[in-house]
Amino acid sequence: MSELTVNHLLGIKYLQSEDIELIFQTAAQFKEVINRPIKKVPSLRDITVANLFFENSTRTRLSFELAEKRLSADVVNFSAASSSVSKGETLIDTVNNILSMKVDMVVMRHPKPGAAYFLSQHVDSIIVNAGDGAHEHPTQALLDSFSIRERLGDLAGKKIAIVGDILHSRVALSNILCLQKMGAEVEVCGPSTLIPKHIHSLGVRVSHDLRKSLEWCDVANMLRVQHERQDLKYFPSIREYTQRYGIDKALLDDLQHKIVIMHPGPINRGVEISTEVADSDQSIILNQVENGVAIRMAVLYLLAAKKKISFSA
Amino acid sequence: MSELTVNHLLGIKYLQSEDIELIFQTAAQFKEVINRPIKKVPSLRDITVANLFFENSTRTRLSFELAEKRLSADVVNFSAASSSVSKGETLIDTVNNILSMKVDMVVMRHPKPGAAYFLSQHVDSIIVNAGDGAHEHPTQALLDSFSIRERLGDLAGKKIAIVGDILHSRVALSNILCLQKMGAEVEVCGPSTLIPKHIHSLGVRVSHDLRKSLEWCDVANMLRVQHERQDLKYFPSIREYTQRYGIDKALLDDLQHKIVIMHPGPINRGVEISTEVADSDQSIILNQVENGVAIRMAVLYLLAAKKKISFSA
Amino acid sequence: MSELTVNHLLGIKYLQSEDIELIFQTAAQFKEVINRPIKKVPSLRDITVANLFFENSTRTRLSFELAEKRLSADVVNFSAASSSVSKGETLIDTVNNILSMKVDMVVMRHPKPGAAYFLSQHVDSIIVNAGDGAHEHPTQALLDSFSIRERLGDLAGKKIAIVGDILHSRVALSNILCLQKMGAEVEVCGPSTLIPKHIHSLGVRVSHDLRKSLEWCDVANMLRVQHERQDLKYFPSIREYTQRYGIDKALLDDLQHKIVIMHPGPINRGVEISTEVADSDQSIILNQVENGVAIRMAVLYLLAAKKKISFSA
Repeated sequence: MSELTVNHLLGIKYLQSEDIELIFQTAAQFKEVINRPIKKVPSLRDITVANLFFENSTRTRLSFELAEKRLSADVVNFSAASSSVSKGETLIDTVNNILSMKVDMVVMRHPKPGAAYFLSQHVDSIIVNAGDGAHEHPTQALLDSFSIRERLGDLAGKKIAIVGDILHSRVALSNILCLQKMGAEVEVCGPSTLIPKHIHSLGVRVSHDLRKSLEWCDVANMLRVQHERQDLKYFPSIREYTQRYGIDKALLDDLQHKIVIMHPGPINRGVEISTEVADSDQSIILNQVENGVAIRMAVLYLLAAKKKISFSA
Repeated sequence: MSELTVNHLLGIKYLQSEDIELIFQTAAQFKEVINRPIKKVPSLRDITVANLFFENSTRTRLSFELAEKRLSADVVNFSAASSSVSKGETLIDTVNNILSMKVDMVVMRHPKPGAAYFLSQHVDSIIVNAGDGAHEHPTQALLDSFSIRERLGDLAGKKIAIVGDILHSRVALSNILCLQKMGAEVEVCGPSTLIPKHIHSLGVRVSHDLRKSLEWCDVANMLRVQHERQDLKYFPSIREYTQRYGIDKALLDDLQHKIVIMHPGPINRGVEISTEVADSDQSIILNQVENGVAIRMAVLYLLAAKKKISFSA
Repeated sequence: MSELTVNHLLGIKYLQSEDIELIFQTAAQFKEVINRPIKKVPSLRDITVANLFFENSTRTRLSFELAEKRLSADVVNFSAASSSVSKGETLIDTVNNILSMKVDMVVMRHPKPGAAYFLSQHVDSIIVNAGDGAHEHPTQALLDSFSIRERLGDLAGKKIAIVGDILHSRVALSNILCLQKMGAEVEVCGPSTLIPKHIHSLGVRVSHDLRKSLEWCDVANMLRVQHERQDLKYFPSIREYTQRYGIDKALLDDLQHKIVIMHPGPINRGVEISTEVADSDQSIILNQVENGVAIRMAVLYLLAAKKKISFSA
């Protein structure tokens, strides 16, 4: 297989496992590129990419921007706090502007689930979903699965625990779908207030006992506690959350086997994960960040190649 | 005529109709460029353009930035909320910085009328006014007139109604001047509280009756109601404003002849214009956005060519 | 000497006078470049520079960005208000991200003294300190000393008065160190509440009498009064500050000899310095801004050359 089955990256749910495999192989090649002294390739020369961020996300935006620049694309950035834009109107405006400004590719983060899909239906540009609310965040899921495979050799048959605030996470759903498509088994673990009721329908295991989850899994993906969000009530308090669902060195070392630790960042050290755990050799958190650039290069390159607009396609 | 009579684009009032004609012809060529797969030309290679936005204006900034990048210019962006800068000092500082940083071209949005002119008197850079308070916004006027001509074939003798908040608009004055220079007739229409007292001196018709204005005109340019501005009191309320000065499908269809609908964006759907009207085939709102990039490319290119700093000049 | 003794620019305190000399000679060459019609050189082609600004500093960021683009580097910008990031975590996160995103050079402004040093200990990128709290701001000091030498021919034996709020200044310490390394004599002048107690240990003279300082010095560097900072109490009021420590034309002309006036910007005209003084031919304030771009080009180029990653190294 040499090209994607999709024209946009809207969500993991639209991808075949062959698509994911192709993205992984391409990302592995780009990872070599970004570890060379000269980190650029001309693949997207003369291509304009607009990064439209309707929510703050410095890390994701920076990772995409680096990926775009290493592909030699022209980049324009647009950032708007979601509070400053009235909901209904904005997306229509965005559609209109993009349609009319003839941007080749759009990377969009938007608070509204389905925003990227909506955009793809109305514009001629290639759309990459950089997070649509608590719905999908496909490049994060791809880089997570890629990082696991890099560490463990394979995803098939591996057991992954996703721990914490599943309900408000933009990472959880995409991760579950991606892992399952690559043959891994998934368990979500957290207080029942932070686990969606419908989660069983996705075919995942549910646990409220961190210890048991960690004994079961090969990899624990520790989600970020979003304690800056005033609208989220962490039951019953951050401190008790940490006691029940945080990992420290003592717990990690006490497990029967060595597990791999992941975190989508930014970390609240001492909350969901202790500094010792984050910095231990069982952690692949830094690999995730590095792989993020490679995965995004792969996605952008493959989508441009599919549409025959990449330089070397 | 092969070059502009001006060295800066400070306002429509400084342009000859021949300048406008040259900009239109050049924009038409660039419009072909941005509809090609490869949308870039090397005209401003090695030229540095600074976008100085002392007021938020995402759409205008994005349109300029795309125009600059498609001309292969280097771009630096500077944004400052007008509230955070003390008035008098800032412009002097700006002058000093630009003079000294040797930027070739400056695109500036500033809340103070005359700011772009002031800058042009003190620096060696080429200055493009991207809006100076409620004074001039020449590229918007150029793209509006260009879009009308594109739809109607000619501007001479055409009747244009500019509807709404003329008083606080940065679009109205430049539009009136541009349309008149190209031989069109202009009427402003709105509540008397939102029409400047001196408007008669510009040689425009004044109306307070939307229905009559629409029956008279070939084109209605519906200005945005700036309801987010707390300092503006719309008489007597937004709702009554819409009833008296908004266009919906029923009104549009009830007119004796088909008129063209324009809007500088962003639209308040359901306020000054209904969704059906905005999306109808009488609307050229999307064309305006597309033409904005081409017009800005033309302006930047022609000013650089005049100063003999463009790549292919 | 053809290369720097340091691998990062963390502070003037780490530089030899030979390093400063090399930076000055290189900056003089780049100053010729930026006064040519084509202001770019390919030195940092294919190099990615990240500007990480954890505090607002439009002028410094713009100057660095221009320097980077004139060296043909790829640039990514990151800005975060210091208030929105929790202190301890952020820098670790930054470290992680930079390490992993394989950025070649990092220019960082951070409110925390020592932040740039900390970063340099943990990442493989070249680090340039663009201000770490009230600690060092080495490129500002370099451009200031370069500008003095440009005007006076030499720094050795020259007398420099630094006037105003020494205590909260990010400019003062770096300036003192740089001037001393180049053989100049330094006096700080201001109210005792705004002069750090330990300043004597740096071997500088201390004065509370502006008139006497000005009669003594060859150059007066007038620091900015940060009156927008609510946490600073200027004794006893801005108005009295101006009376005792501001320079106006009458005072300047009344001195026994002609002194050179500097200011790091942005100026509060009428507070620490009058408009007439700022714009007089004794002022080299605009030269400072112009030299800022050249100095930053020199620093970035020399650090890249040291690491053998520059295009022409």
